[in-house]
Amino acid sequence: MQKLATTKRAGRQSVIMDKGTALLYPATVAGPKESLGPLSTFFDRHCKDNIMNEKSFEKAECHMMEEACHLSLSKAGLTPEEVDYFIAGDLLNQIISASYCSRRLSIPYYGIYGACSTLTESMALGSKMIEGGFARHILVATSSHNCSAERQYRYPTEYGHQNPGYSQWTVTGAGALLLGAAGDGPRVESITTGKVVDAEIKDPFALGTAMAPAAADTIYNHFVDLERDPSYYNLIVTGDLGAMGKKLNEDILARNGFNIAPLYTDCGVMIYYPHQKVNAGGSGCACSALVFLGYFYKKMLDRELRRVLLVATGALHSPTSVMQGESIPAVAHAVSLEI
Amino acid sequence: MQKLATTKRAGRQSVIMDKGTALLYPATVAGPKESLGPLSTFFDRHCKDNIMNEKSFEKAECHMMEEACHLSLSKAGLTPEEVDYFIAGDLLNQIISASYCSRRLSIPYYGIYGACSTLTESMALGSKMIEGGFARHILVATSSHNCSAERQYRYPTEYGHQNPGYSQWTVTGAGALLLGAAGDGPRVESITTGKVVDAEIKDPFALGTAMAPAAADTIYNHFVDLERDPSYYNLIVTGDLGAMGKKLNEDILARNGFNIAPLYTDCGVMIYYPHQKVNAGGSGCACSALVFLGYFYKKMLDRELRRVLLVATGALHSPTSVMQGESIPAVAHAVSLEI
Repeated sequence: MQKLATTKRAGRQSVIMDKGTALLYPATVAGPKESLGPLSTFFDRHCKDNIMNEKSFEKAECHMMEEACHLSLSKAGLTPEEVDYFIAGDLLNQIISASYCSRRLSIPYYGIYGACSTLTESMALGSKMIEGGFARHILVATSSHNCSAERQYRYPTEYGHQNPGYSQWTVTGAGALLLGAAGDGPRVESITTGKVVDAEIKDPFALGTAMAPAAADTIYNHFVDLERDPSYYNLIVTGDLGAMGKKLNEDILARNGFNIAPLYTDCGVMIYYPHQKVNAGGSGCACSALVFLGYFYKKMLDRELRRVLLVATGALHSPTSVMQGESIPAVAHAVSLEI
Repeated sequence: MQKLATTKRAGRQSVIMDKGTALLYPATVAGPKESLGPLSTFFDRHCKDNIMNEKSFEKAECHMMEEACHLSLSKAGLTPEEVDYFIAGDLLNQIISASYCSRRLSIPYYGIYGACSTLTESMALGSKMIEGGFARHILVATSSHNCSAERQYRYPTEYGHQNPGYSQWTVTGAGALLLGAAGDGPRVESITTGKVVDAEIKDPFALGTAMAPAAADTIYNHFVDLERDPSYYNLIVTGDLGAMGKKLNEDILARNGFNIAPLYTDCGVMIYYPHQKVNAGGSGCACSALVFLGYFYKKMLDRELRRVLLVATGALHSPTSVMQGESIPAVAHAVSLEI
């Protein structure tokens, strides 16, 4: 391992934590379709519709994020005043779900944009701040909403546009989590921050294919930086590559000497039943938030999983960039969790 | 001063740095209108037009950010491989200037969204990572472009829409800076992270008025957290409140016991001549980037200024949120710099 001048750094992209920030009190709010999926019983709240008595899908999405934040704080027995920072982001232009949610929380706020990599981006930034001694508790949150995302990125759902078979279904929901210097929960053991990787994909329906090379790049560099191989982990889980992206990620890593297939899954292939008509699977910031914070977090608490590499992936295009003929760059951030 | 369990924290919103991250090798790329302004000679590069041989204003903005990044690295004599992180953001949907710039830099990347508060948000996050021992060099960058911002937030400039007198002119340009654990330059002495403040303004032309209460809140809490008053500083400078927001910020602070007027200015009122027809002044992420990194940084290096409180301010609305009748929340992050 190439130990750099700053002792916490390992290799080009990774850092090893001394104490390890604890992940505490996850809270999940699932949309109606997600509440009919195979992981439904693991989610805290189930929305019976997409609109939540709000006047727009965007306001409903913000409402879901607020509910997840308040639920996490309530589980922790903390008031917003006792939380040092709020780090959040989402898919909407100007991350309005996060910013408008923050307006009512009144916690010092850092908005971030990593598309569907937001969950691990917020964990990475937050745990570095806690380990650096700058905070005791940080609330992180993310959300996505099928109807707000589809109409922003592609077509309003009311058009009834038929998506190709390799497309994915943007998950409706929100997740929040407290990061703490102390407490019982999985700890952040190391972090590999992703470089932006552009696979030259130009089809905004083929996001799994666009993001898989970024996931593979980050996982590969995680192993190289930390001199590990896949067997170090009980589970490697990506955020929302879907069926096609998952296979591509496996293949790229296998060609580069790492066979992750036996212990690898993707949140996007887990969140819906095949009969729910989601084509290649789920996507969106809430995909990894619901599946990791709802399901895998509990498996870690129960010690069914002790070492998990969580890799949330984000496609960094905008409708404008795609219309201007640009390809879709992507990023993936890996967080190694141990209990 | 309320010293909390974690010693670096002071009060509710502030942290004090032990060593203090150094601000190094700022680089500024100014648009054509900015190159005709009173600070023109302080900028590194001057664009002769808004399009920079690119096919769109969005691509031109990304080009400017890339140029600023490469110039900062070149001044430092560093390759991208020697930089640990790239933290950047801008005003465009999905921060495409930052993400597409990152694609070619190939540095581990954290995208952030704080609208025009991006400069101090990136400084705050980056200097905490450096002081926490997670990095030696971090490149931070931001940009804005009058034509890409106007058509996204308000109307395409080709429409010739007449803006009200209290509107501001989005600055075209980009700025980049290296944060380093060591090196000669102003150091980050303390940071006050802003809460989101909503003054219930609904007019997307009145951004100075929407942001001033957030600036005042952050500056007020900076003084309270650190038991300081304005006389601690040689200069307090906000990012882009413009003439009306600047006056409002002064007034709110004066009503709350802090008279900052004698040592206070705003980048938005400095970047253009009155005859340049910018109404209440400049705005946009590049406003504070050009004025601070181009002008005030040099004043600090020359020891004309030894203690500066830099407060970049961001309006966190989107066109969608405004059309849905929402008000415009805002945030401001303060970074105390000493040399």
